[in-house]
Amino acid sequence: MHGFARRHTVRAALEWLDAYLRPLESETIPLRDAAGRVLATPVISAVDVPGFDRATMDGYAVVADDTEGASAYNRVRLKIVGAAMPGSPFAGAIHRGETVRIMTGAPMPAATDAVLPAEFVEIDDAGASIAAISAVSPAKNVGRRGEDITAGTTVLPAGRILRPQDLGVVSSIGVADAVVVRRPRVRLVITGNELLPAGTRPHDFVITDANGPMLAALIERDGGTVDFPGLVRDEVDAILSALNATADVIVVSGGSSVGVEDLAPMLVAQQGELAVHGIAMRPSSPTGLGRIGNRLVFLLPGNPVSALCAYDFFAGRAIRALGGRAKQWPYRSMRAVLARKISSQIGRVDYARVKVENGRVEPLSVAGASVLSSTTRADGFIVIDDDSEGFPAGVEVEVWLYSIP
Amino acid sequence: MHGFARRHTVRAALEWLDAYLRPLESETIPLRDAAGRVLATPVISAVDVPGFDRATMDGYAVVADDTEGASAYNRVRLKIVGAAMPGSPFAGAIHRGETVRIMTGAPMPAATDAVLPAEFVEIDDAGASIAAISAVSPAKNVGRRGEDITAGTTVLPAGRILRPQDLGVVSSIGVADAVVVRRPRVRLVITGNELLPAGTRPHDFVITDANGPMLAALIERDGGTVDFPGLVRDEVDAILSALNATADVIVVSGGSSVGVEDLAPMLVAQQGELAVHGIAMRPSSPTGLGRIGNRLVFLLPGNPVSALCAYDFFAGRAIRALGGRAKQWPYRSMRAVLARKISSQIGRVDYARVKVENGRVEPLSVAGASVLSSTTRADGFIVIDDDSEGFPAGVEVEVWLYSIP
Repeated sequence: MHGFARRHTVRAALEWLDAYLRPLESETIPLRDAAGRVLATPVISAVDVPGFDRATMDGYAVVADDTEGASAYNRVRLKIVGAAMPGSPFAGAIHRGETVRIMTGAPMPAATDAVLPAEFVEIDDAGASIAAISAVSPAKNVGRRGEDITAGTTVLPAGRILRPQDLGVVSSIGVADAVVVRRPRVRLVITGNELLPAGTRPHDFVITDANGPMLAALIERDGGTVDFPGLVRDEVDAILSALNATADVIVVSGGSSVGVEDLAPMLVAQQGELAVHGIAMRPSSPTGLGRIGNRLVFLLPGNPVSALCAYDFFAGRAIRALGGRAKQWPYRSMRAVLARKISSQIGRVDYARVKVENGRVEPLSVAGASVLSSTTRADGFIVIDDDSEGFPAGVEVEVWLYSIP
Repeated sequence: MHGFARRHTVRAALEWLDAYLRPLESETIPLRDAAGRVLATPVISAVDVPGFDRATMDGYAVVADDTEGASAYNRVRLKIVGAAMPGSPFAGAIHRGETVRIMTGAPMPAATDAVLPAEFVEIDDAGASIAAISAVSPAKNVGRRGEDITAGTTVLPAGRILRPQDLGVVSSIGVADAVVVRRPRVRLVITGNELLPAGTRPHDFVITDANGPMLAALIERDGGTVDFPGLVRDEVDAILSALNATADVIVVSGGSSVGVEDLAPMLVAQQGELAVHGIAMRPSSPTGLGRIGNRLVFLLPGNPVSALCAYDFFAGRAIRALGGRAKQWPYRSMRAVLARKISSQIGRVDYARVKVENGRVEPLSVAGASVLSSTTRADGFIVIDDDSEGFPAGVEVEVWLYSIP
């Protein structure tokens, strides 16, 4: 039971980690499940959208030249020879002096080249002809074949996080599935013999697991799928079996330090590589990064604030990147003025919870890493780099906001 | 077939709508499904967290006074009388001159008041005693009972959108469920006889539904649950039956204008109230808002860009608010300088798609409401209010960004 012999810098830990971060292979899923997923390959259209010239207003399809000079004082009469509806084109041919009633979205009848909007038209009593009271120029109120998408166009690039309107566009070119980056499968290993399962009332000297529900939600936020079958005893066999689960990422919470009771670091080193153990940061210095087979392993401290911090710095980054997302935090940031000074130490990265009140940043005065409610009272956090001793009151700092809009 | 007799202002339409927007009733769900849901009632803790004083570092639990004056030159010897582990307290009593090995998170033994960290200690060879080489002050490295949460405290307020760490805190007070606002149930009604179901290759004069997948994803983004059994024919019976579905909100796409083929507005007026029909905005002026029974009904134009715009202005607002969320757009906004002038018209609200390139806002030059790919090429949109004729190049405008970080 002694401290870490040396601590890795956050930068060195990230460098080790980033070398393993490539998007996983792709999978094909139905379009209706694809919102928020990451495209693995570009989407290229095989068709023109629309596949035909069409009306973009309700009105009358005309030969534009026929309306030349039309006005309220020079009505131009056109004979109605039919109607065109969306999906139901006017089948016949049109001649000069004729028109076809047309609805928005309907195919333009052959030989017509413009739509005269309904408000520039008077219909005769019998409904057999119209009087145009305004001219219309060629191509007016007509959507050309391919004006939305031309066949061969790359509609969406690889890496795109699919937005609702992206699904609309993919659907409109007749594609039913999306080829997306597979979601990383994450085995969540919550250790601690003192823990009760989430949702159990704590009593005596046992406490209730906070990290399981928190980490599961973080992993899902970052695009991972969670495998969390329940708490794991602080015992070699139980931890070993969890470390060898089928997964892309193993996230362990608890027992990550250097005490004799801290089994996970020793087991990771035995089974694979414990590349980083002990990081110069506060909280969450007893964090470990390693690999067993192809699985990236993250050893997070059991203290909930440390677990959150270490997750956000390392595990979340990996899960996002394996899933094809940006490594950067999903948090919005803002710049605001610090209301009170905040101290740190050269050589250490600090993760400080803050409130933002009336545009001023108020550090939460909390001692340890165990006060999880500091992260729910906080609006976000600031990071104090390891080349800084902190910030005086009055300087502008960057705040990362926990709330997703 | 003539235009709208008059158009409602966007403001008037929102005023009508907002009068009906209250959060739905609550429901109780398991905590593990509660991330991103909206709390219906405050969460108040019935317990202290932690429920006991505990060590916040690995080391030795001591009576702080015993270490007074200890230094490398004045070693103070303490006898190890036991160990305290998380969940497994030291059961005995402690006397002056004695210490208990303790791990982070373990309960403090009776009568001890500080933890001497392992690095300030030398252990004798037999492991029976330690030499303190530093003093420790009372309360040092001890987390007090209730320091995280005191019984009776409101841990989270009603209306909170639950964050990952919120789930951790709720779990830690022994609560297994979350009482959240029920998600609005939204019946999605996509009409248009010219439409093929999503994912079908378009051909001849039929086009493939883009609005179904887009609107389903938007509704889910805004916290609604989607009921979308398939396309609906432009026929009275089919639309009537869809309008009478069990739902909190009905979103209809297509046939929302004033043509004889536009059945939905007439049917809403017949079955309930068509309060707003025709709105002074571009695109999506042929939008309708109404109610049938307790169901809010939104008639969106079939053109995909119009559908997106009308959804975002009206239907999305309602779905968010019924689900207990903010009425405001979920988009981030930024301020940036307009690269080219953009024109609008007094009396009309414009929704203009833009790209943001090198910090400059470039309006996308697209004619109509039918070019859905303009919304996938766009980074976001700007809104030009109805008291503005647009903006000259060089002014700073607010851009709403489609990408969720």
